[in-house]
Amino acid sequence: MEIQKPYLLFLGDAHDPLAAKVAQGINQWHPEYCAGQYRMPDCAADLGLTDMDIAQAKEAGVKTLVIGVANRGGIISDKWIDILTQALEAGMDLAAGLHNKLNDIAELKTLADSLGRNLFDVRFPTQSFPVANGLKRSGKRVLPVGTDCSCGKMYTALAIEQEMLARGIKASFRATGQTGILISGSGVSVDAVVADFISGAVEQITPANDADHWDVVEGQGSLFHPSFAGVTLGLIHGAQADALVLCHEPTRTHMRGLPTYPVPEIQTCIDACLAAARLTNPAAHFVAISVNTSQLTKAQAQECLAEIEAEFALPAVDPFRQGVGRIVDALALLSETAVGKPVKEREKI
Amino acid sequence: MEIQKPYLLFLGDAHDPLAAKVAQGINQWHPEYCAGQYRMPDCAADLGLTDMDIAQAKEAGVKTLVIGVANRGGIISDKWIDILTQALEAGMDLAAGLHNKLNDIAELKTLADSLGRNLFDVRFPTQSFPVANGLKRSGKRVLPVGTDCSCGKMYTALAIEQEMLARGIKASFRATGQTGILISGSGVSVDAVVADFISGAVEQITPANDADHWDVVEGQGSLFHPSFAGVTLGLIHGAQADALVLCHEPTRTHMRGLPTYPVPEIQTCIDACLAAARLTNPAAHFVAISVNTSQLTKAQAQECLAEIEAEFALPAVDPFRQGVGRIVDALALLSETAVGKPVKEREKI
Repeated sequence: MEIQKPYLLFLGDAHDPLAAKVAQGINQWHPEYCAGQYRMPDCAADLGLTDMDIAQAKEAGVKTLVIGVANRGGIISDKWIDILTQALEAGMDLAAGLHNKLNDIAELKTLADSLGRNLFDVRFPTQSFPVANGLKRSGKRVLPVGTDCSCGKMYTALAIEQEMLARGIKASFRATGQTGILISGSGVSVDAVVADFISGAVEQITPANDADHWDVVEGQGSLFHPSFAGVTLGLIHGAQADALVLCHEPTRTHMRGLPTYPVPEIQTCIDACLAAARLTNPAAHFVAISVNTSQLTKAQAQECLAEIEAEFALPAVDPFRQGVGRIVDALALLSETAVGKPVKEREKI
Repeated sequence: MEIQKPYLLFLGDAHDPLAAKVAQGINQWHPEYCAGQYRMPDCAADLGLTDMDIAQAKEAGVKTLVIGVANRGGIISDKWIDILTQALEAGMDLAAGLHNKLNDIAELKTLADSLGRNLFDVRFPTQSFPVANGLKRSGKRVLPVGTDCSCGKMYTALAIEQEMLARGIKASFRATGQTGILISGSGVSVDAVVADFISGAVEQITPANDADHWDVVEGQGSLFHPSFAGVTLGLIHGAQADALVLCHEPTRTHMRGLPTYPVPEIQTCIDACLAAARLTNPAAHFVAISVNTSQLTKAQAQECLAEIEAEFALPAVDPFRQGVGRIVDALALLSETAVGKPVKEREKI
């Protein structure tokens, strides 16, 4: 599944800027994919892109209208259908990551089929996947893992890819969730795959590659989240990561959505993730800690990062505040020293 | 999903007795569910049940024809369709756990719908499940976990349920795979659930119960199997087991299907399963080791069991050779001493 670019980002009738955060993410990480934005009259979001109607977007060569907004309820609104229909008629595909499917709206489905257009419901995988084989693949992989859900794993991965590409390092972000798929244009929502095929799906989206190529795999969930840990374990096994980055939000008092479950200690999470990762890649190492300090002042953030860095003897950064240069430094070091060496030697690094 | 009893076990054109092992399992564990067997002329399997055609089965009050045979390829054979059609017309439901679905065979689906009959494809869950909430439920739960797939977890669970019921202990086998579902008449194939809902599905099939009731949950896979470990972790978290039983096949040289992956050490597996189980039930304990000694002589088996028992200070039995009396003894002890006591005290037991 590869969504064709460039995109028209559909902001619809977003009731506030946050409702358009998917569109914002696409524009932040891949402005070169974004030809313009479509705002309905009552839209409260604005990405600062050129406003376009469907005819103007067609003129600008847009290939896909991406629904970059979530209304209350996270479903495709009836009010959008006319515009989506126009886009199909103008030759565009449609892409969305919402709870209901473009493909389940008969009007859109029939029209798309008759015109030969694609409807991408990126939350719902349509491919079938093989069972994971656990075989070592060429190329290198880095995976952010978290003490909890929603603590910065996607942001960290996208920032690492961007920094690597800026340094001329071969790198590909591998999306494992719907927002990541819309941002990058491909990937699989692994939490929506049939359970037997979690690791197999991840193996498939991180295939064998050049020895000096990095897959930067989007992390999901946490081994310590009782609702979703199975997804996380399958993802860790399938990714066969050479390098892990621990993602943490230091002010959180309990696991997301579960008030009776405390957030694990960083060391506990490191130990568990490393044990899991080493099943399929005995050379797996933690290279850094990525801390989401958005709830802290600048001074608190600096103190927090210094403490974590001292305690765990790993670079600790907030990717949003400081960038991921030091994480990529650590990964580059790992590449130079470890590539091609047998596991025993790498263990010593 | 509750499959109505009694059953007519359909052995079809089984090419050897092993091909009818699902039917054999149903008859072994629940002979009271089995009114008779249906054998086609070239059937090489025989369970020793009364042979019945569809008219005789109807006369005997059969509610469901269960396909208890797997032909080469594991699909529903064209040669069976006439008989399955007759069964629907005689008022029976159909149940199967094969790779293709009864519901995908237009002839059967149309007929079943028109007659108001049910087609149970137990490999494919049709319900939707909630995300797991991780909340403690009343009642007790025991879960077999394995060093590998296919090493005796279902057999161990069924034997524990049988022994508990024979002793007058309240117990329910909770099936998590297609064979277990056909044997017991209900359950969910957790490896076929959407990944986000593994733990939620397990929570749903092991609901709150009487304080002295045991759910005996069928185990799946292994935390050390790189293809399926996500399913196992979700199952462990959802089950919130008070008691774990480690299942092991001592002659296996590598993980099933993966020649480059060694079977983990028993202690390694115990440690990992216990850490996982204690996330959702801090009182989780291993109570026994269940050893599949089918590849050993009687003398070898006795030696193997004695060694394991001495090394791990837990009862070690082969459920097939010795029964699970000692496992149920350990569970009964856990009930008497631990029920209602706070976690701190239980930890000491």
